[in-house]
Amino acid sequence: MQIITNPAEMQAIAEKLRLQHQYIGVVMTMGALHEGHLSLVKLAREKAGTVIMTLFVNPTQFGPGEDFHRYPRPFEQDAALARSAGVDYLFAPSTEAMYPESYSTMIDPGPIATRFEGASRPGHFSGMATVVVKLLGITRPHLAIFGEKDAQQLTVIRRVVADLNIAVTILGAPVARESDGLATSSRNIYLSSDERQQASVLYRAIRYAAEQIEQGRADLDAIASEAEALVNSEPDAQTGYLSFVDEATFEPAAKAAPGKACRLIMAVRIGSTRLIDNWRFEFQ
Amino acid sequence: MQIITNPAEMQAIAEKLRLQHQYIGVVMTMGALHEGHLSLVKLAREKAGTVIMTLFVNPTQFGPGEDFHRYPRPFEQDAALARSAGVDYLFAPSTEAMYPESYSTMIDPGPIATRFEGASRPGHFSGMATVVVKLLGITRPHLAIFGEKDAQQLTVIRRVVADLNIAVTILGAPVARESDGLATSSRNIYLSSDERQQASVLYRAIRYAAEQIEQGRADLDAIASEAEALVNSEPDAQTGYLSFVDEATFEPAAKAAPGKACRLIMAVRIGSTRLIDNWRFEFQ
Repeated sequence: MQIITNPAEMQAIAEKLRLQHQYIGVVMTMGALHEGHLSLVKLAREKAGTVIMTLFVNPTQFGPGEDFHRYPRPFEQDAALARSAGVDYLFAPSTEAMYPESYSTMIDPGPIATRFEGASRPGHFSGMATVVVKLLGITRPHLAIFGEKDAQQLTVIRRVVADLNIAVTILGAPVARESDGLATSSRNIYLSSDERQQASVLYRAIRYAAEQIEQGRADLDAIASEAEALVNSEPDAQTGYLSFVDEATFEPAAKAAPGKACRLIMAVRIGSTRLIDNWRFEFQ
Repeated sequence: MQIITNPAEMQAIAEKLRLQHQYIGVVMTMGALHEGHLSLVKLAREKAGTVIMTLFVNPTQFGPGEDFHRYPRPFEQDAALARSAGVDYLFAPSTEAMYPESYSTMIDPGPIATRFEGASRPGHFSGMATVVVKLLGITRPHLAIFGEKDAQQLTVIRRVVADLNIAVTILGAPVARESDGLATSSRNIYLSSDERQQASVLYRAIRYAAEQIEQGRADLDAIASEAEALVNSEPDAQTGYLSFVDEATFEPAAKAAPGKACRLIMAVRIGSTRLIDNWRFEFQ
């Protein structure tokens, strides 16, 4: 595995690989790698001849008061994990290399970026979309894999890539989960052991909703309220949002509609740690 | 010359050309082709193995009340001119192909987009930058040539392309001028014959400023005021702005500074037609 820090060098390598007819897959991360990331690399290895992982804690997608400075940065451990997972190139630029002093361009994904995660985190999706477009420009992949855990992020990326005519296939990968169903996340390490136990309530709420839908209920608004009550029954849990949404637009979906896919999405604070999760439902 | 209207088809052709090690040059236009555009194609022919011209009247860079609907669209004539100039592919998509109903992404180039042309035309540079990024994604060129007539546009494009790590060389081409110095422009056809005569005052103002600077003056602010008075001495001329600016940032430059390049930029309304022009100065 080669570690590259210079954007121009990474770009030159990627262009050369393309001319050699190599099929390039990229996995974008902010480091603090866990099973979730490694499952994306595994998928990339299956699909692509060359796998690039980007590792960059992107300041423009953190809001004021968010955890940019305390975000974990275990670089040596991340590099070792990436190497064993079969990454060919680890692209880990400095903030200055990505955002030199003269930098000024931002991408606005439009209304979808203002809903749910976007409402809780103003500017987040603009910063995220901007760095994803930059990293696609630098790594020039044929395929980019993103976890479905960040479902709205995935939808925003699909929107921006289509709108800007960027020639890349975007693939969503299933959420990796712990044995009790908690979605793997770099932020899980912030949880105390008591909070960690309570945190499984996100998945329990998903299972509750799934059971109700399996029983034929279509009143998604009511199911969401019940699932939210279940979440808030944990002493240190506080729901930010919990809602069914249309999969493509993230507009709220109050009732199940045959033939339409939707997602149950949620953001829950456990103590001071904010966790998100989601589940996809299709209706016949 | 092949005429392509489908973005995906153009993108597939461009990717194939790249894999065949073809060096692709692109010239982006809104049609109504004149000598200015053709001089860009000539330059592209000298530099590139394959020349793509894009022809798209981009609605997102016109403001309300601007001339989007009355902008000239002589397609057959444009296609004939492009063919004789040696264009290999003419990419002329529909508005719907570029901006389908679900479209929502915009690019904000930052503060430079709010100065001068950006102040006169709110949203113009955001719309322009967005379509340029889209067209670069579709035509995948190694080289893109833009006229220096739209000097601020050229600087915004350089900024956005660098910021978004798009692997393309941006080349500025000298302003093409009529025999009396008037810069060629699709909008010149709006001028009455009397207005057409008055319109040469933009170039006369440039020559006046150049003479003052050749004589060793460094008080750019004062020179600009004198040049503006010269412009406004024409009965139907009204200056929007006329200023010396730093070449890279378009921040106003009041005094000449040794070793720094700046531009004299101006927007002038002749009757109801808005014209722009500029000149580059270097100081020893």
